[in-house]
Amino acid sequence: MNMIKETVIEADPGLPVIRMTRDFAAAPGRLFRAHTDPALFARWVGPDAMATRIEHWDARTGGSWRYVSAREDTDGDTEYWFHGCFHEVRPDRIVQTFTFEGDPDGVALETLWFEDLGDGRTRLRTQSLVDSFESRDAWLRSGMEVGVNEGHAKLERMLADGTV
Amino acid sequence: MNMIKETVIEADPGLPVIRMTRDFAAAPGRLFRAHTDPALFARWVGPDAMATRIEHWDARTGGSWRYVSAREDTDGDTEYWFHGCFHEVRPDRIVQTFTFEGDPDGVALETLWFEDLGDGRTRLRTQSLVDSFESRDAWLRSGMEVGVNEGHAKLERMLADGTV
Repeated sequence: MNMIKETVIEADPGLPVIRMTRDFAAAPGRLFRAHTDPALFARWVGPDAMATRIEHWDARTGGSWRYVSAREDTDGDTEYWFHGCFHEVRPDRIVQTFTFEGDPDGVALETLWFEDLGDGRTRLRTQSLVDSFESRDAWLRSGMEVGVNEGHAKLERMLADGTV
Repeated sequence: MNMIKETVIEADPGLPVIRMTRDFAAAPGRLFRAHTDPALFARWVGPDAMATRIEHWDARTGGSWRYVSAREDTDGDTEYWFHGCFHEVRPDRIVQTFTFEGDPDGVALETLWFEDLGDGRTRLRTQSLVDSFESRDAWLRSGMEVGVNEGHAKLERMLADGTV
């Protein structure tokens, strides 16, 4: 099986959904840890030019989270806050809500699957569901692919060098 | 304005969404209380033939909930468990996730709005978003309207007699 080494981002034609897929050279448990340990998560999430600080993190079924990202080359005068709750946290799947506080009434239902490909490889699949095609398409136009790809590349390096 | 006295249940033609609307002769704050106070909520939610027991309830942004409903005319041998997390709880809007544990991988993102109609009346609007039309249509075929209408009728009586 060929590995998906750049994150594939797809818009569903019939549902207000964004799907992403990427393969990592690590077992599912390490991917799960990178998504649930706050110190690890803060190190890889988002674009290279941003730093993330976890404000609140309780990665268990029924828990919640909040973090802030800011450009590293400014004095943090532009902060981007995000928050949500963890509907379910289990080794093969995380379901959570996601709000960018710049659009406080917007909310996405996100699902992440950690799919064991064998041979120490994992396929990460994610799905973000919102309640209108307009909101979905605004996300796609926002430049999100930069943060996703740079974030996943950082995660890949952390898996390779044993940080995770 | 005419009041909507039976719950209107509608399927969106282009989104995997169920919407419900009903008006109540009570101010928004009383509707909000009926949806966030666990003892009150347990008394009205669901069909007349079922009794609900709250297992866990933390109705604040980032909290979570779980409850069980069982037929009153049996020995509770058939229990229906539900759980979710509260993404946001504020006086005019509740956003939460919802899973029926008989279908443990299914999850809906639910939004409830308490819309002040003036003169001590409130329009309750709800939206349930899932990730496929098949899941949405299965909910519509499940007989959910019985529980919704009987539940809202109980709530109406509790508002009328001052229980809420």
